[in-house]
Amino acid sequence: MAANTGRLLRVNLSTGKVGTESVPEQVATDFVGGRGYGIRYLYEELKPDVDPLSEENKLLLLSGPLSGAGAVAVSRWMAVTKSPLTGAYARSVGGTDFGAWLRFAGYELIIIEGKADRPVYLHLTREGCTVESASEIWGKDTKVTQDWLTEKYGRNTRAVCIGPGGEKLVRYAAIVSGRRTAGRCGTGTVMGSKNLKAVAITATRHLQLFDEATFNELAKEQVKIVLANKGFQNHREWGTTRTQNVTNEIGVYPVQNFRYGQQVGYEEITGEEYRKLRTGKFGCYACPARCGMAHQVNSGTYKGAYSEGPEYETIWAFTGNTDSTSKEASIAADALCDDLGIDTISAGCSIGFAYELYEKGLLTRADCDGLELKYGNHEAMVALVKKIANREGIGNLLAEGVARAAKQIGKGAEAYAIHVKGLELPAYEPRGAKTQGFNYVTSNIGASHCFGYAAQDIFGAIEPRPSDRFAEEENADLVVYNQNDTAWHETGIICAFAGRWGWVDPLFGKLLVAARGIDGLEDKDHLHKAGERIFNLERAFNVREGFGRKDDTLPQRMLTEPLHTREAPGEGQIVRRQDKFLDNYYKLRGWSKQGVPTARKLKELGLDSVTSDMTAKRGK
Amino acid sequence: MAANTGRLLRVNLSTGKVGTESVPEQVATDFVGGRGYGIRYLYEELKPDVDPLSEENKLLLLSGPLSGAGAVAVSRWMAVTKSPLTGAYARSVGGTDFGAWLRFAGYELIIIEGKADRPVYLHLTREGCTVESASEIWGKDTKVTQDWLTEKYGRNTRAVCIGPGGEKLVRYAAIVSGRRTAGRCGTGTVMGSKNLKAVAITATRHLQLFDEATFNELAKEQVKIVLANKGFQNHREWGTTRTQNVTNEIGVYPVQNFRYGQQVGYEEITGEEYRKLRTGKFGCYACPARCGMAHQVNSGTYKGAYSEGPEYETIWAFTGNTDSTSKEASIAADALCDDLGIDTISAGCSIGFAYELYEKGLLTRADCDGLELKYGNHEAMVALVKKIANREGIGNLLAEGVARAAKQIGKGAEAYAIHVKGLELPAYEPRGAKTQGFNYVTSNIGASHCFGYAAQDIFGAIEPRPSDRFAEEENADLVVYNQNDTAWHETGIICAFAGRWGWVDPLFGKLLVAARGIDGLEDKDHLHKAGERIFNLERAFNVREGFGRKDDTLPQRMLTEPLHTREAPGEGQIVRRQDKFLDNYYKLRGWSKQGVPTARKLKELGLDSVTSDMTAKRGK
Repeated sequence: MAANTGRLLRVNLSTGKVGTESVPEQVATDFVGGRGYGIRYLYEELKPDVDPLSEENKLLLLSGPLSGAGAVAVSRWMAVTKSPLTGAYARSVGGTDFGAWLRFAGYELIIIEGKADRPVYLHLTREGCTVESASEIWGKDTKVTQDWLTEKYGRNTRAVCIGPGGEKLVRYAAIVSGRRTAGRCGTGTVMGSKNLKAVAITATRHLQLFDEATFNELAKEQVKIVLANKGFQNHREWGTTRTQNVTNEIGVYPVQNFRYGQQVGYEEITGEEYRKLRTGKFGCYACPARCGMAHQVNSGTYKGAYSEGPEYETIWAFTGNTDSTSKEASIAADALCDDLGIDTISAGCSIGFAYELYEKGLLTRADCDGLELKYGNHEAMVALVKKIANREGIGNLLAEGVARAAKQIGKGAEAYAIHVKGLELPAYEPRGAKTQGFNYVTSNIGASHCFGYAAQDIFGAIEPRPSDRFAEEENADLVVYNQNDTAWHETGIICAFAGRWGWVDPLFGKLLVAARGIDGLEDKDHLHKAGERIFNLERAFNVREGFGRKDDTLPQRMLTEPLHTREAPGEGQIVRRQDKFLDNYYKLRGWSKQGVPTARKLKELGLDSVTSDMTAKRGK
Repeated sequence: MAANTGRLLRVNLSTGKVGTESVPEQVATDFVGGRGYGIRYLYEELKPDVDPLSEENKLLLLSGPLSGAGAVAVSRWMAVTKSPLTGAYARSVGGTDFGAWLRFAGYELIIIEGKADRPVYLHLTREGCTVESASEIWGKDTKVTQDWLTEKYGRNTRAVCIGPGGEKLVRYAAIVSGRRTAGRCGTGTVMGSKNLKAVAITATRHLQLFDEATFNELAKEQVKIVLANKGFQNHREWGTTRTQNVTNEIGVYPVQNFRYGQQVGYEEITGEEYRKLRTGKFGCYACPARCGMAHQVNSGTYKGAYSEGPEYETIWAFTGNTDSTSKEASIAADALCDDLGIDTISAGCSIGFAYELYEKGLLTRADCDGLELKYGNHEAMVALVKKIANREGIGNLLAEGVARAAKQIGKGAEAYAIHVKGLELPAYEPRGAKTQGFNYVTSNIGASHCFGYAAQDIFGAIEPRPSDRFAEEENADLVVYNQNDTAWHETGIICAFAGRWGWVDPLFGKLLVAARGIDGLEDKDHLHKAGERIFNLERAFNVREGFGRKDDTLPQRMLTEPLHTREAPGEGQIVRRQDKFLDNYYKLRGWSKQGVPTARKLKELGLDSVTSDMTAKRGK
């Protein structure tokens, strides 16, 4: 039996042509799968300097080599393209079932080329792929769109789609599947630019494994290890909804557009507080963690808001940025982002940017359509989410992302644009977690938290060694390690958390061999080398686009302004009304305005003899 | 049987005359005892405007009406005088056995007048009081002094004494008994100014109670309540050595001369960390709490340092002020203060003041005898403690206290002098605990933490009502309540902690009646009124000395600079060496200085075909 390298579906939306190819064995050997396949094809097929929103750009949707079978946490999917937000390489990862369904349909990846002349969607089955008119769902939100597709094709249908954000080319539009998104870098924008509303797959479980029996044995072993792992158990319990406890404690929870590292009143937004609003859990294909936590608001302004989130990054995006501690507003904003199809991190960061410009007078209330962008005003924040997704008023400007918006505004606004290579920063303050910060600097997609996550800084991970989170060049080796590690893990599109659940070495390699039938994939050195190869080819893509050392930099704020943490509620306090206090105090004491005990009070206390001493002083 | 109002020993050091008096029953009724007796006699006997260091000043040493018997936590002693540091009324409280011994000798208070023409000490027994030459102990530290007295008079001897600090008139010299001190306001300085090295008492247990049987019954009841009290149990376990956990958490732990409300790295100085160095516990007469925690340093620079402390205030004084997190240095500094007889709070605060002046360039290294007063330099801090106590070099200036030192230095140094009425601030940041802060403002001795401790702000106490710790004039009633409460508690010199152990109402009043034989003392209104009477008479003393509203103020810093908390270690961080990081990172990656993958690296990764794309970009 031949090696199982994965099949590729190629769809050209300009011509309507659909074809399939097998991935060459050399590519499978060198790039393994998933993210490896993504950069391999993108680099080979994309001409330099194409406009990311033109028909010359391509969008790759990828599943992983282990997806859709019984192994845990390897069924996520990935979008790879050239980013309309950054102009650089983009990869963004999503959850739920779509990755498994893509395998069920018979493919490991889809390469979408060209541009449809009208709104369309793709419908895949094992029988083939058709390009269908999206006229009935164009303009609809992601929930309505997916419901419509399920209604039309039945319950064995899963889809990725865009919402109004992607249609309107918000530069950080997301691709949404279920209520999970590939949020970053504007992969949904590329989909919108191609007039592609959705990719729907109708299929039932269908495995393509080189050696199914061995794979199933290995998968059983993997499940056993995972279920016993403490990290897994914690993740099953909390998902990412408690990370803000840690980041606030150590002072790396960005607040007010990265001016502070701790949020005043973060007690109100701890994981435990969110849990009170939790209404359910959901998960990805074949994963027992079910780490997605659904939340519902039961009272107040946002009553009825329901989100299958927010995750940590989104919790932060809609609290810290605007210095709001309203969980309810964050849930409402998250739900809107998922409905309308925009990235929560870039949206939150763009809104935080606007709030600071408002404070500094660079944006006026008139500029902001009458909204008062004062820290803590979460109603304005929620309003801005809608405006951005629909490119209305000030939202049209913020939909460009902070780098472009700052240029348009001028007047020094760039000082407040918090991004690396055009990608807005996520929820870890670089000054307080420098290994993480330098990952932003050197990540191939810009400021991503998960392109080489520095668990050493945040959770005190000790592999491959502990970090000093305030050290700088001393941690370059850790940044390289984390990035390469992520890269080879993502050849299997392993969930970012599952990589730490104790099974990867040596089960990942063995599972790959069982799935692909290519010997050598189990070799650790080979996998590590593949990770490095992938990272380098991504870098080469960026270099070819003109990126270089000049672009490897944190925002100016991190290089010039000391970080201020402010955990305690007393931050910024000052004594303002000492005089009023003294008035009240003296009155309560029965003393004169000058603080001298009065004759009446002294008499009351049987201290009449003291009165004459006081008389001389009274009024002085 | 006549009421037991307490006997008074009067010693005139100028004339050598010694006499005894009974306290009049009206005084016992109106002022109850302890602090009440202190201000009653001081107000009556001191002429206005006397120089506190002249022979016209008087020093009162007081025991309480319940001391020396079987009741818990009522055997502390007190020094009352006119302060050479503030020019105002002074009261300072000390622990261990001296209070009980003073009662055993037959007295509730000693009034020391005049000035000896050579170093002397007093020796009291039940037979009488003699004035003895102190020539053999003058110049000796407090430990040597007390050992000498015990050696001379036997193990039934207890003493209060001064060290070199008091002899050299450091304005905040302490009176020391055992290793406990009446530290604040320079009561030891007054002792030094009178050439009085020590007061030693040789006595065995001897009760003077009006109704011993009833007293003992009540005391048994008190002990039972206390032992069952959770606050007591916690205090027995930790004493005050864990308060820094709370104050750092809520952001009121003053750091760097009250610039910040939280200390970076306070994890290193938590109660739990100090506990690791704990070698023993000790306590006051008849108190089962034994809340004094002894610590010893076993390694490093301060190896061998042993202190029967530090308490919370001292932990802070020798960490937060100089931004050092060396427990060991704080133990060494505490031991030195006790040996040399100076107040740890005023010493620490004066040192923190010097560190800030050094940073601001108002004190040079030459001014500081070559010491480098940089935050974190705890060796310089320990060196300064010695210099202050001995008035050597820069220590001679700092021995004056921050208010006087600032005036001498000029050049705007007063902005950094953190005091109220000349008394240096203790370990609670007023901006973050305003009820506590306004107690400093209106306390009769200046910035004392224990003259009306705002447990509402710090520990969330709900009696008489919870405080909003950022409210100002709204909390005037709480300040009055706390101060009056403290005042009537201190008529029995009840330990500041024991007042919250559930027994005071109604047992304190009943114990007073049993001890004094004066009906009416059990009446709550009477006691409350007595507290108010005492507070007012103290205020009247200060008014008579010229104090008034103008002096009721926090330092300028608290009125003009917002408080910055900084719990997290990231506070103040900035990314400084991004370029160096990139050099390291690119090198580890095998990339050029411009961040371009080299031909060699691409070849190694099997990406030779990419090399030509890179060549065009290399070096750009």
